[in-house]
Amino acid sequence: MKLAKNYAFLRRDLKQIESTLEDTIFTDQPVLHEASTQLLRAGGKRLRPIFVLLAAMFGNYNLSKIKKVASAVELIHMASLVHDDVIDDSDTRRGKPTVKSHWDNQIAMLTGDFIFAKALQQFTDIEYPRAHQILSKTMVELTIGEIEQIRDKFNYEQNFRSYLRRIRRKTALLISSSCQLGAVVAETSSETEKALYNYGYYMGMSYQIIDDILDFTATEKELGKPSGSDLLQGNITLPVLYAMENPQIKASIINLFANKEQMNQVELKRVVEAIAKSGAIEKARRVSNTYLKKAYHSLKKLPNNQSKSALENIANFIGNRKI
Amino acid sequence: MKLAKNYAFLRRDLKQIESTLEDTIFTDQPVLHEASTQLLRAGGKRLRPIFVLLAAMFGNYNLSKIKKVASAVELIHMASLVHDDVIDDSDTRRGKPTVKSHWDNQIAMLTGDFIFAKALQQFTDIEYPRAHQILSKTMVELTIGEIEQIRDKFNYEQNFRSYLRRIRRKTALLISSSCQLGAVVAETSSETEKALYNYGYYMGMSYQIIDDILDFTATEKELGKPSGSDLLQGNITLPVLYAMENPQIKASIINLFANKEQMNQVELKRVVEAIAKSGAIEKARRVSNTYLKKAYHSLKKLPNNQSKSALENIANFIGNRKI
Repeated sequence: MKLAKNYAFLRRDLKQIESTLEDTIFTDQPVLHEASTQLLRAGGKRLRPIFVLLAAMFGNYNLSKIKKVASAVELIHMASLVHDDVIDDSDTRRGKPTVKSHWDNQIAMLTGDFIFAKALQQFTDIEYPRAHQILSKTMVELTIGEIEQIRDKFNYEQNFRSYLRRIRRKTALLISSSCQLGAVVAETSSETEKALYNYGYYMGMSYQIIDDILDFTATEKELGKPSGSDLLQGNITLPVLYAMENPQIKASIINLFANKEQMNQVELKRVVEAIAKSGAIEKARRVSNTYLKKAYHSLKKLPNNQSKSALENIANFIGNRKI
Repeated sequence: MKLAKNYAFLRRDLKQIESTLEDTIFTDQPVLHEASTQLLRAGGKRLRPIFVLLAAMFGNYNLSKIKKVASAVELIHMASLVHDDVIDDSDTRRGKPTVKSHWDNQIAMLTGDFIFAKALQQFTDIEYPRAHQILSKTMVELTIGEIEQIRDKFNYEQNFRSYLRRIRRKTALLISSSCQLGAVVAETSSETEKALYNYGYYMGMSYQIIDDILDFTATEKELGKPSGSDLLQGNITLPVLYAMENPQIKASIINLFANKEQMNQVELKRVVEAIAKSGAIEKARRVSNTYLKKAYHSLKKLPNNQSKSALENIANFIGNRKI
């Protein structure tokens, strides 16, 4: 089954959001135009806009307002990816060259800045001060998450809490904010808003854990980048943390990075496979499932409708996703 | 005379803005905290906050609102400087090591992102939708200006219009927006707002031209960075454009950059001196003066008060500033 089947009824609205995204990043500055449309057209699941729409369906669903929120959160996500690729020195994303590899780090930095600014400009039409507070706070946390990721690279002694705090900031908060913002502009009750926020938060945590698992279990074709890319960057994710409970694997990881300049690709592949087979994946998947159950549970109090079913199905889908 | 003499009556309010700035960028993330306070404490003229305050004095001066606007524009300015130093690979600013030289480009990129986000978070308390539109539009233009600056580097065939358009985006708009935002939150008449916007715009143009002149005429001590730094980056500023009207100087500039890797420092110094003595400085100063006169003229219709005198005096000061 495809993810999109879960929200087929949103197809027309999502199409509008797609053209809002294109319109929003329009500029006659050629480099910025090309760089920012490149990532946009590379696709992506548009998970955050989908959450905005689905959340808004619990209140007054006004597409002309909602699409601005939905495209703003997607653009902020995109901008953070562009900067992320600079940090991680990544050459491909979604199977396409990254902005930093097609141009350079400077252009990537400015393209990110530009997309951020355009997202905000789009968002100024939203006349809910609380919506602005939610979005800007999320942006602050996102940046702190990025810095924490740099700080925690190659730190083999970090604990599970550091990891969870980091993915909360890096991923979960923007997803929970997407749900919450949908609720805010649709003027739902505060209970509904809270439930949707929680759903998004737990979904986001689960989503990132699955992402971190896929770095070890998916193929290069599925990922759109080489397997083990995160590990190669020194990102100590949940599977790595679990795998390192085995002292031999821990030693081989530390050894792998002992001389980063002369990274042995064969050795990297061996370590990736060792992690994949260590039982760490299953343990990480269990943590992800715990969050998914919580996401599910958050929806309990919400009225049964098409949107609720879609949110439930997405949770199911994400838990089993292969890409 | 010192610049600060022109607005001594704002001393107490500016002190409050200084502590608002410190409070706004507070974070318990150590690297972000250190990197963002470093630039803040390196000082600066706080020109943009001063313009916000002075503009607001033409309406309902409510410091608790105004200080949020004033600190937000200063932080956006600061964030753009941090990213600017990455683009220009600058090691010193205001006589202190830049974030990118003290840490690295990645930390500088994220510090800029962080300060941007914190500025926006601060600004969400301002419940004037138009203020948000003004600020986000300015941020978009600022980024486009940065990209244009990269594009136009070492482009010896660019014309005056490219230069003016670039400094409009890079500098003038944030200054005109500072004036305008002060007027918006003080709820002045739209005529007053327009006059203040124009003042800021012309001042900003003049300010940047003087900045570009000082790159050739001020000492390293005065600038807080080596003379000729902008030229070294390949930035073709107004004095360079005028100097290149002399074919010999143009040839020597092109020759200087023919082999960037083996830049001859003696030759650079010689070219800087040739530009300084070519008459280009005087021509550039004349353009700056034209803008200053327009800035002055923009204030004509405004009522006479302490703020208007200060704005006039600042225009005088900026025109003759040595640093």
